[in-house]
Amino acid sequence: MSHHKNPDSTPDITSDTTPDYDEIAVQLHRQFGGKMATALRDTTPMTRHELSAYYTPGVGHISSLVADDPSKLREFTWTNNLVAVISDGSAVLGLGDIGPAGALPVMEGKALLFKYFANIDSVPIVLDCDTTEEIIETIQRIAVSFGAINLEDFAAPQCFEIENRLRKSLSIPVFHDDQHGTAVVVLAALINACKVTGKDIAGLRIVIAGIGAAGTAIARLLKEYAPDCSIIGTGRSGALSSADTTLNAAKRALLDEGILVDAADTSLADALVDADVFIGVSAPGTVTEDMVRSMAADCIVMALSNPIPEIYPDVARAAGAAVICTGRSDFPNQVNNALAFPGIFRGALDNGVQQITEAHKLAAAAALADFVEQPTAEQVIPSIFEPGLADAIAQVIV
Amino acid sequence: MSHHKNPDSTPDITSDTTPDYDEIAVQLHRQFGGKMATALRDTTPMTRHELSAYYTPGVGHISSLVADDPSKLREFTWTNNLVAVISDGSAVLGLGDIGPAGALPVMEGKALLFKYFANIDSVPIVLDCDTTEEIIETIQRIAVSFGAINLEDFAAPQCFEIENRLRKSLSIPVFHDDQHGTAVVVLAALINACKVTGKDIAGLRIVIAGIGAAGTAIARLLKEYAPDCSIIGTGRSGALSSADTTLNAAKRALLDEGILVDAADTSLADALVDADVFIGVSAPGTVTEDMVRSMAADCIVMALSNPIPEIYPDVARAAGAAVICTGRSDFPNQVNNALAFPGIFRGALDNGVQQITEAHKLAAAAALADFVEQPTAEQVIPSIFEPGLADAIAQVIV
Repeated sequence: MSHHKNPDSTPDITSDTTPDYDEIAVQLHRQFGGKMATALRDTTPMTRHELSAYYTPGVGHISSLVADDPSKLREFTWTNNLVAVISDGSAVLGLGDIGPAGALPVMEGKALLFKYFANIDSVPIVLDCDTTEEIIETIQRIAVSFGAINLEDFAAPQCFEIENRLRKSLSIPVFHDDQHGTAVVVLAALINACKVTGKDIAGLRIVIAGIGAAGTAIARLLKEYAPDCSIIGTGRSGALSSADTTLNAAKRALLDEGILVDAADTSLADALVDADVFIGVSAPGTVTEDMVRSMAADCIVMALSNPIPEIYPDVARAAGAAVICTGRSDFPNQVNNALAFPGIFRGALDNGVQQITEAHKLAAAAALADFVEQPTAEQVIPSIFEPGLADAIAQVIV
Repeated sequence: MSHHKNPDSTPDITSDTTPDYDEIAVQLHRQFGGKMATALRDTTPMTRHELSAYYTPGVGHISSLVADDPSKLREFTWTNNLVAVISDGSAVLGLGDIGPAGALPVMEGKALLFKYFANIDSVPIVLDCDTTEEIIETIQRIAVSFGAINLEDFAAPQCFEIENRLRKSLSIPVFHDDQHGTAVVVLAALINACKVTGKDIAGLRIVIAGIGAAGTAIARLLKEYAPDCSIIGTGRSGALSSADTTLNAAKRALLDEGILVDAADTSLADALVDADVFIGVSAPGTVTEDMVRSMAADCIVMALSNPIPEIYPDVARAAGAAVICTGRSDFPNQVNNALAFPGIFRGALDNGVQQITEAHKLAAAAALADFVEQPTAEQVIPSIFEPGLADAIAQVIV
């Protein structure tokens, strides 16, 4: 794993001193002309004999072994450490459906995170596809080239079908990080936030604003962990309810399965009265100071819209929030997927896991929560730069 | 580029001392568990600020720039140095149609050659496809992820349609190396073999045994370079002739276009009488000592079947061949695609070439031939380890 001394020692960023990341990004991308490269595993000088073993004629023997028994791919090819980072560019960061070319710099960035935090080789692949069927069949056709698949920035609700069908049809791990990585980190943060506030996670009243890819996965994982908690999900027109005939199948399933409380004629403001937890995966300004003030004592606010949160930490704190998380690195408690996915994939690859299950996600969340020895309101989750974090999570993905 | 001191200084291999490459291949592949990895271009320790520029929020700005103008992919992503090495596993080395899993070790080996000889990043992609249409559409859908495409080990005649349609539909270079890489090296060797033997390439009588992917491309490129040479192509049932109603469209086109002489009722032995050049891309034992003896004085024999050539060099020499090439590293004059494709792709990537044309291939062959300052019967082409070779070829791909 890549380590270094004081990544967090750079001066703290405040709203006044936020660097111009756009400008820095252009500078760095221009300087290096991209973020990733390939490298040889065997870095010793190569003789003609070694080339004859790595390529023809020797590689023919390896190919025969693998053709006879494809499980030997793990033994003889780079797939043992290889993740494909795949996107169709339909839901890129805050930019939306910008297409495959625009998505590539983000996927290459994800490959950088894989390498940097877990020494995992990964390849960004962007898809120029028109339909869900095309996406699924294209990934199925190239999947044998990889050891695992990280789906990234696919729009909801298509992302659910894409992931489900790939999970069923492929024998390598398929993991939509926008859903499950986010859910794992949110659950870990919530476990520790409950320790800090003395709340019992079992009976929590939770409101999730934004029931897209992340909101759906968060609701499902929280309910898996704490079946007796109550979760209301809200969208732009208020709480989800089966009375709404315009709901898509994925949202309707959350109500039908009892993951979300069926709450007709309930606004976000209504839902938040006496709630213990607000989880925002929505948009800037979704929640107001007054709404937070109406929540239960010592409430927990996760305002994860990025880069501008649903409510700023200082405002939420003034309104009574005891623990506040955002998606930003310049505030405490950054809910960052890079806390989870490097370790999850590290474990899946090292331990030959063929599918990342609900149990794996719960174990990863517990390991991530446990990684903070003494949780405080300012630290319910670790820094992404914490040495050993990916390994600690990898150990429970078995 | 990777350089090292004396790759050729290992003891010469003879038929008695040929190493067990199968065994060495297993050892090396086990030791390293594969051949390739990824690496970061920016190898300096990373701060939180830099991560924020390489990934969110900074990368969003890069994505917007690229989404607005996909030509900026070259400026801001690793595609500026990236080749996809793609195969469907339908014609792998001497193994045939072993499928995508078995093909992956070879494609990873090709990626190693790209890195080692030209410092080009490349990603092996194997396709689990059932039809030519599926292959073409799958590559079209992932192509935006790459800067160029090297097609490898696709069976003839499907390989012709796959390459042609991809060349027309994609704006990045698409190059089927089994065809054109081989043709470039053969032409270079032939140019210098003519210097050595004093033959005029313009009027050569050439016989090509094996009109598959390589044989077809060789015939077309030789005829492009020397329109007045005569080429007979032979298969298992003798010379190609339009009288044969079982010929596929690709072979028929070679006759219709006048690339090959239409030679009904002609065996390989008949065709070789008084021929100047034999080019074998067929199978061990295709050509006999007697056949070589029937060829013109100072004849040129390229016995490229690998690892066992159509005829061994000592036998061909005894039968009167003046210049002999094989595909093997343990005899002089190894016709090895690694002499050409690293430089061709290096040039295409560096110079923003969108399509590798006939003119590029002719220029590459000339540059490769010129790289041997003083051709001799034992050296009509350089060693693949010759420093500066890829750069010399890259310079003419403009």
